[in-house]
Amino acid sequence: VSEINPIITVKALGEQGLLQLLHQFCPPSIVGDDAAVIQPRPGYELVVTTDVLVDGVHFSDRTIPPEALGWRAAAVNLSDLAAMGAESIGITVGLGLPDDTSQDWIIEVYSGLSHCLRDWGGVILGGDVVRSESRILSITALGEVRPQTKILRHRAHPGEVILVTGFHGGSRAGLELLVNPTWGQDLSEAHKSQLIQLHQRPTPRINVARLLRSQSISCAGMDSSDGLADAVVQICRASQVGAVIECDRLPIHPDLLRTQSLTPAQAIDWTLYGGEDFELVLTLAPDLAKALQSQLPQGAEIIGKITAQPEIRLIRDGISVPLSQNQGFQHW
Amino acid sequence: VSEINPIITVKALGEQGLLQLLHQFCPPSIVGDDAAVIQPRPGYELVVTTDVLVDGVHFSDRTIPPEALGWRAAAVNLSDLAAMGAESIGITVGLGLPDDTSQDWIIEVYSGLSHCLRDWGGVILGGDVVRSESRILSITALGEVRPQTKILRHRAHPGEVILVTGFHGGSRAGLELLVNPTWGQDLSEAHKSQLIQLHQRPTPRINVARLLRSQSISCAGMDSSDGLADAVVQICRASQVGAVIECDRLPIHPDLLRTQSLTPAQAIDWTLYGGEDFELVLTLAPDLAKALQSQLPQGAEIIGKITAQPEIRLIRDGISVPLSQNQGFQHW
Repeated sequence: VSEINPIITVKALGEQGLLQLLHQFCPPSIVGDDAAVIQPRPGYELVVTTDVLVDGVHFSDRTIPPEALGWRAAAVNLSDLAAMGAESIGITVGLGLPDDTSQDWIIEVYSGLSHCLRDWGGVILGGDVVRSESRILSITALGEVRPQTKILRHRAHPGEVILVTGFHGGSRAGLELLVNPTWGQDLSEAHKSQLIQLHQRPTPRINVARLLRSQSISCAGMDSSDGLADAVVQICRASQVGAVIECDRLPIHPDLLRTQSLTPAQAIDWTLYGGEDFELVLTLAPDLAKALQSQLPQGAEIIGKITAQPEIRLIRDGISVPLSQNQGFQHW
Repeated sequence: VSEINPIITVKALGEQGLLQLLHQFCPPSIVGDDAAVIQPRPGYELVVTTDVLVDGVHFSDRTIPPEALGWRAAAVNLSDLAAMGAESIGITVGLGLPDDTSQDWIIEVYSGLSHCLRDWGGVILGGDVVRSESRILSITALGEVRPQTKILRHRAHPGEVILVTGFHGGSRAGLELLVNPTWGQDLSEAHKSQLIQLHQRPTPRINVARLLRSQSISCAGMDSSDGLADAVVQICRASQVGAVIECDRLPIHPDLLRTQSLTPAQAIDWTLYGGEDFELVLTLAPDLAKALQSQLPQGAEIIGKITAQPEIRLIRDGISVPLSQNQGFQHW
């Protein structure tokens, strides 16, 4: 049983060693006091959001390496900022770690957090590290938004159309590739790797928020973290309106139609309910939506329209059916 | 084994039920979107801090009821805001809950969070609830501070004195009463109950921050969450100065001297290293400190002075000894 273990654990590092390690990832002017001091730019409002990721519930060593986990934890929060039309100012990081967590794992996670912030804005504003049985990442992201171009859920109006950025279902397929070795084996290695990337390193749509702001476009919307269908449901509920979604218009990730592991009907289900694509679902006037669509990357699609009648219907094979509302990701 | 269980668990509530429950604790104008929008007052900077509490590490059912746990979780973070000289704007709440957590437990915790914010400022700005093996509270507090009266650790100067608010060691004694049934049995029920309160429902020193701001006093300092001695060490380290602390001046909680369970030397140790008293440790000019002390509640004491020589010494029984720096609370 006696074995030489070259891994440096948090227990071996001690609290001071751990804090010194983590401070290297933060701007020196920000950390070192009881709290970090920041300042939104004049004319901007502050936006705040929190997401907690728990080992065994939201991630596992089997499905994501630590650097990607860090990226993903930051991206999930920055997606919420983008969904408000905001820019990222930074994040605080609450870390719960078992005694035997290795220093390398922590460095990789913080590198991933830093990489996402480097690409999409913001810095690490400090946080807290504590001992816990499971590994936990609790991220709070702070952003700044112009009041005029703030994106809120409750502002959808009948007559507007629903514009969705990017493809959907790709993250769900990436996860399936990671946990089910028999799935999607008819896909090329390049396609498989791309789908896995979609799951492990999602892109927060900060660039879409910037585009909207640069053109002073005000719209309703949210991100599709809990599924494209769920986003439409939440927007309609908050705005007390309904929607009609055309299945033919859904931005199905092309790889979902390339594999025999999925029927076309299942591909539609993953597109609607797969979740974790972290794209934006926006409602706005038809002409504005078309103009915006032409400026967005591949996959952006006008999938339907907002109706006064407060129900959500799906046009599938020419038949209008009520949207199933209980297929999204449920924590309980 | 079959048993009727009238407790409503989070599993039974489901995600929507749980979110509806928690939204009742938030201002309706704040929650319901991907992120909350807030605005610090003009002329103020924003302050942000995060603390994570884990069941079995930072709290247990044996030492704290859920309402007090909520209070304490908010107070710990508001103490960090006070230690920056800030007012509270609000908190985000990241909750990790096992499946069998009862609805009542959650309501009690949120009530405690709300009570602390009602008394000391701010609102619940949303958060995240996830499934986890242990119960976890990850709180991020946002505050606003006037740049002129911001309290920072690195601004202590030789010639200044060290002013400490309140008594110390009381929280440590309260914890001992909760975990050790033989300890302090010669104390009256009123004293015991008061010490337990100090542990379970600490007061964030927002009022001290307000006093400093109202008199435009700029000083160095931090809170004594990890112990009075640790606060002096951190301030001196950040300011590259030293300090002399007089044991005769230490604000020992009077109850620590009332029980035979503690020797006077142990009472001093708990005062210096017990931790979790959440008072403020400030350094400022002697005349300012005296004027301030007279306006502070019982226990506030000038315990020593800042020196140019970068070492921390303790005058104990007329003898100057180096301060022991490794007795504070260590997470690892």
